[in-house]
Amino acid sequence: MAQPFTIVGKSTPKLDGPDKVTGRTRYLHDLELPRLAHGKILRTRLPHARIVRLDASRARARAGVLAVVTGADVQQHPFGFAKDQLALKRGKVRCIRDEVAAVAAETPEIAEEALELIDVEYEELPAVFDPLKALEPGAPLVHEELTTNRHHLRYQFTHGDVDRALAQAAAVVEDTYRLGFVTPACMGTMVAIADWDPAGNLTMWTTTQVPFIYQRDLGEALGIGGDRIRVLQPPVGGNFGRGLDLYPIDVIAALLARAARRPVKIEFDRVEEFLACPTREACAIWLRTAADRDGRLLARDAHVTIDGGAYTSWGSTTPYVMLSTVAGLYRVPNVRFDTTIAYTNNPYSGSMRGYGNPESTFAVESQMDDLADRLGMDRLALRRLNAPKPGDVSPQGFVLTSFAMRECLDAAAAEIARNPPPPTPGWKRGVGYAGMFHVGGGARIYRSDGCGAIVKLDDFGKVTLITGASEIGQGSETVLAMIVAETLGVPLARVDVVNSDTSIRPWDVGTHASRTTFVAGNAARQAAEKVRTQLLDMAAAQFDEPAAALDVKGGWVFARRDPQRRVQYEAVARAGHFRGGGRMLVAEAFYDPPTTMLDKDFQGNVSAAYTSAFQAVLVDVDPEIGRVVVRKVASAHDVGRALNPAAAEGQVHGGIHMGLGYALSERLVVERGQVVTQTFMDYAVLKADDMPEIEVRLIESVDAEGPFGAKGLGESGVIPVAAAVRNAIKDATGVRCNELPVTPERLLAGLGAAIRGGS
Amino acid sequence: MAQPFTIVGKSTPKLDGPDKVTGRTRYLHDLELPRLAHGKILRTRLPHARIVRLDASRARARAGVLAVVTGADVQQHPFGFAKDQLALKRGKVRCIRDEVAAVAAETPEIAEEALELIDVEYEELPAVFDPLKALEPGAPLVHEELTTNRHHLRYQFTHGDVDRALAQAAAVVEDTYRLGFVTPACMGTMVAIADWDPAGNLTMWTTTQVPFIYQRDLGEALGIGGDRIRVLQPPVGGNFGRGLDLYPIDVIAALLARAARRPVKIEFDRVEEFLACPTREACAIWLRTAADRDGRLLARDAHVTIDGGAYTSWGSTTPYVMLSTVAGLYRVPNVRFDTTIAYTNNPYSGSMRGYGNPESTFAVESQMDDLADRLGMDRLALRRLNAPKPGDVSPQGFVLTSFAMRECLDAAAAEIARNPPPPTPGWKRGVGYAGMFHVGGGARIYRSDGCGAIVKLDDFGKVTLITGASEIGQGSETVLAMIVAETLGVPLARVDVVNSDTSIRPWDVGTHASRTTFVAGNAARQAAEKVRTQLLDMAAAQFDEPAAALDVKGGWVFARRDPQRRVQYEAVARAGHFRGGGRMLVAEAFYDPPTTMLDKDFQGNVSAAYTSAFQAVLVDVDPEIGRVVVRKVASAHDVGRALNPAAAEGQVHGGIHMGLGYALSERLVVERGQVVTQTFMDYAVLKADDMPEIEVRLIESVDAEGPFGAKGLGESGVIPVAAAVRNAIKDATGVRCNELPVTPERLLAGLGAAIRGGS
Repeated sequence: MAQPFTIVGKSTPKLDGPDKVTGRTRYLHDLELPRLAHGKILRTRLPHARIVRLDASRARARAGVLAVVTGADVQQHPFGFAKDQLALKRGKVRCIRDEVAAVAAETPEIAEEALELIDVEYEELPAVFDPLKALEPGAPLVHEELTTNRHHLRYQFTHGDVDRALAQAAAVVEDTYRLGFVTPACMGTMVAIADWDPAGNLTMWTTTQVPFIYQRDLGEALGIGGDRIRVLQPPVGGNFGRGLDLYPIDVIAALLARAARRPVKIEFDRVEEFLACPTREACAIWLRTAADRDGRLLARDAHVTIDGGAYTSWGSTTPYVMLSTVAGLYRVPNVRFDTTIAYTNNPYSGSMRGYGNPESTFAVESQMDDLADRLGMDRLALRRLNAPKPGDVSPQGFVLTSFAMRECLDAAAAEIARNPPPPTPGWKRGVGYAGMFHVGGGARIYRSDGCGAIVKLDDFGKVTLITGASEIGQGSETVLAMIVAETLGVPLARVDVVNSDTSIRPWDVGTHASRTTFVAGNAARQAAEKVRTQLLDMAAAQFDEPAAALDVKGGWVFARRDPQRRVQYEAVARAGHFRGGGRMLVAEAFYDPPTTMLDKDFQGNVSAAYTSAFQAVLVDVDPEIGRVVVRKVASAHDVGRALNPAAAEGQVHGGIHMGLGYALSERLVVERGQVVTQTFMDYAVLKADDMPEIEVRLIESVDAEGPFGAKGLGESGVIPVAAAVRNAIKDATGVRCNELPVTPERLLAGLGAAIRGGS
Repeated sequence: MAQPFTIVGKSTPKLDGPDKVTGRTRYLHDLELPRLAHGKILRTRLPHARIVRLDASRARARAGVLAVVTGADVQQHPFGFAKDQLALKRGKVRCIRDEVAAVAAETPEIAEEALELIDVEYEELPAVFDPLKALEPGAPLVHEELTTNRHHLRYQFTHGDVDRALAQAAAVVEDTYRLGFVTPACMGTMVAIADWDPAGNLTMWTTTQVPFIYQRDLGEALGIGGDRIRVLQPPVGGNFGRGLDLYPIDVIAALLARAARRPVKIEFDRVEEFLACPTREACAIWLRTAADRDGRLLARDAHVTIDGGAYTSWGSTTPYVMLSTVAGLYRVPNVRFDTTIAYTNNPYSGSMRGYGNPESTFAVESQMDDLADRLGMDRLALRRLNAPKPGDVSPQGFVLTSFAMRECLDAAAAEIARNPPPPTPGWKRGVGYAGMFHVGGGARIYRSDGCGAIVKLDDFGKVTLITGASEIGQGSETVLAMIVAETLGVPLARVDVVNSDTSIRPWDVGTHASRTTFVAGNAARQAAEKVRTQLLDMAAAQFDEPAAALDVKGGWVFARRDPQRRVQYEAVARAGHFRGGGRMLVAEAFYDPPTTMLDKDFQGNVSAAYTSAFQAVLVDVDPEIGRVVVRKVASAHDVGRALNPAAAEGQVHGGIHMGLGYALSERLVVERGQVVTQTFMDYAVLKADDMPEIEVRLIESVDAEGPFGAKGLGESGVIPVAAAVRNAIKDATGVRCNELPVTPERLLAGLGAAIRGGS
């Protein structure tokens, strides 16, 4: 397909790559400030206990200690989605992550030692670790003042008549899918550096990925206006949703810095990262799917139970997206959805790449496979039959414009069949499939889903994009620079991206929901278009031609009719500047997608574009020991337009890595409120040589609203993986593993059951 | 006078003050970078010599040395006003400042030691240290390839018929005024830090005050495009014009960093600062002034001889401004002006606060005083008679709009007479006067005299001004923030100024010619006005009123007819943002004053406003030992509008301090090419307790083009001081001291001559 583009569509190394591979990048961990003090946090070791006495006097007296803060002696305000926690706990602790005191000292070692000098006497309380048990009468209350452990959050949705559809169905499949805690396991742990100036303004260097929301939330937690907080985001070693909410580390850094009158850095070590980094929530999804005899879906009925943990962060809100999948992944005319969310004494969960969708897609796509079995239909045919098409409107009111799910399905199916790896003798081979449905044009979960951009073109032809969008390793800098270079018709090397300081950047809602390429990309494109118009206006005077007769490409401004009449674009800019009445080239734009928030009935068109993907997974299973080896993954993605194909593939590779871990090996073991897996020896992230052959196909549906037709992709890679792996294992062994991860023990148990059952 | 302003016009502490006084400010000297190497420069000790041999092998071999660069082994390109120097000299050295090699090492100490390991063999050449001797036949040539020491720069101007006017004059006074080298003596020495990235992009942390010109010049010196250079300007401890040109320190830092593949910092120690910091040029001004019997000026005839030193920086171009004073300080219908500028083997000069004007004003105002004597007229009456008025056009074509010289004269005269300090018994007392004439609305010495501004108002009501203007201690941050706050009607504390990174800031020609308040102020005001318009448009929808019926003041948007109908401005911004089709508040502006460059005949209207000042100085002189004590200075300044009166007064105080040093004590002694005064023990900057009582009067002529009526002020304070002191000494003693500084020796010599002459 001939593309009319110079820069967009060509695989381009990440602009921040050279600095990263040569060790020049200064990550948050590397930052030093004059007089920097080091903070450490004292956590409880009891999942539920009353704080009887806390004596920090010995810690305060230790040489080198600059400040000790506890819940009793600092001003703080509740924060979080439900405003149900303080950074430093008062009265009682509700999970083992709970922060009871913190120390700032001259060195991290002194701070660590001082923690041990803090005497805390607890009265241990009965605890509850299961969301359903938490709702039983007489269960210990996590928050007494709420008088119940049932969370006020409830996601209840009905569309059509599910009961009638069930009654009329030719086939109904019903199961419960269980998903445990996992953690993003970022290579760079969480860090917060706080620095107050004499006027009471706070500068924060942080791992947040929502800097402007963070500004507001941190201000509320500290009791100051967001205008007093400047947020700086140095490069981070991964985030994956971890930075989507405010967590105690940031508040405590600010409280310590205020008390110590010094800048304070808190840096999690790896054990602390396992304990205190927000996880993907544990949940159980009960799901029932009904179809007619031809395989046409009639209804879905779902109930999601979520372990909310001790406090409310994004993990308790994931049904928002789970519902989208239950209602939107394949055409389904009747949908019922409900939730049970309960407080427990477990650690609480945040958002993690895909945000509910890997969980719900595991349930939906596992069940689609089983439904095909029940109907005796081909698994792909069932999915092809029910795949949504452009023009569809989902039961929630999502309007599908560009949408290439069937193309993704065909591409992934063809790809997995091509050149299969040689089989392992004695092992069983299987192929599994799963699709996914996700927002691809932002997601209006706040009243604004916008992003601002400022583009400046200087005398030397250097272009700076100041964007609201945050780079968290996903390659946004590069793709935004490409969009600006393409729009302006200038070489990519001339474009810089500035994206890490709230005092300079225009607003953005943050990096989430795969929105950056789409939303920030449109803002960048619009600002660049304004600069392009200004540039051609300047050139019009210099060429003595109307601006419409001129064009700019490859760094040259030229006459369309006579491309040899051309001037380097920076020469046009200089000539337009260095004269009486001259001017510079600067423009801004703000793009907010034409979408609506969900209403109280969860109806609305939250995204300006929706996207899909389809994955096929080929596994070999050693039935003797239950070992599953993924040999090949074929992943086809409707990206609208692949602006930076290599980066898009990289996003998918990373997602598949994370998804395979979710499917097979990663498991944050939480037992009686304790996080048992505290190192990479226990928590099994897949290593490079665990990874299969991966084939990515980027399907271009060319979205009319997206920048150059592009849609979001950041989360697509991870979402279908676990379901496709589960379905491949079933294909190989006949065992339906409905609980993640599919460990050898679980698979062997299933195999044993299958043998015992005689099947 | 009732002012309609909330913020403008009120004395406001500098916004960067608290950080400075609490030691939080990180000056350029304080900066550290990972892997930072330290550079040192080897200079010659011979003012003129051929480099016969340079052997750096021992230095290269020293442990801890990372790179050694010499003229022989680096790629470099000539730079400077006349492109007549290389950063690392080749073939020969022409003055004792000349750089022959440089070392980067792990520590400054190692670098220093390595310098001593570099063997340089010179063949000393005959040298020339006097510009007139340099022009004699057979004088040693500083640049052989030019075949002469006469500089190609020549400033020749004629207006009217000077010879006829001289013939018709009732009185003609003629004298030569001699001015020596002085140095800005900044508390913070010069520093350059250079850091190349793997792609060949260079980041510079520098003392420049013209970052965008510097980008171009440094790029040329290094043979790369300016687009590859990012310029960062951390806070500096003074600049005063020192940062107006590119000097070898910056080029060498970049060359060392390139060779060492490490960031390199070069930091001058105090001795090096005395040797290598650009000076105010030494010059001799021959001047003749003619008047009719009533005291009306008929003509001025001037010839300026400048010691250009070994290379050409701004010091050789100061006649550009000297001419303005000869032609513009008082009405004078016939003017002739010429220059002799010669290369010598002395250190070369740069620009320094006032840039030629303190020098020429010393000549012109000394001569005005003597002319009054000759005519038997009152010194003030003569000046009042000849003072320009609004509507005047100077012989060069400068158009005076707002112009309050007579008001300044009256104010300073009245102020000096009020409550004079008690006299010292036995000492002689005198009062002296001097006025000055200067640009106050930019100075178009480049084809653009513009400045860009971007203003953003965020959800929290925080306003950021991103300005092209550089802060060098003059208070620009504060006054620009005030202009934005006043324009937007928001509290000053809500405004931040971003001004130190070329990759973010829009273009500005730099800090010089007292232009920042005027030019950057207008740009800031225009951008803020656009944001204000956007804000009121948002409010119009929310108030259901036309925008014209609304106003914003003190942080409230209100209905003009019913000011109780009001909403906090940040609430308006939030409501305008957090909705479908919402947007953010960002706007940009570029202001380039409506002026022209001087043509080849030095005709043109270079500034959008002109300004004047008048100073009166009261001295007591001990005739026994020639000691002069300045007891009081009254200084009246046409500031257009005093936006920040305390800061304006501070600028004048600083100028008077510098001017008194120029008049009485500061003298960079250069003998046979050697800088003899290398410490503050030798170079006598006035101490706090040397300072007299100072009374500043700010005269508000309210310029129609200036922001809120303001004009430039940065240089006015220093310009007339030396002349006023000289005239006060004459008033006290009768001695005409036409050479600066007026040391006790010189004054005693004059007194002796007066006694010997029997007067």
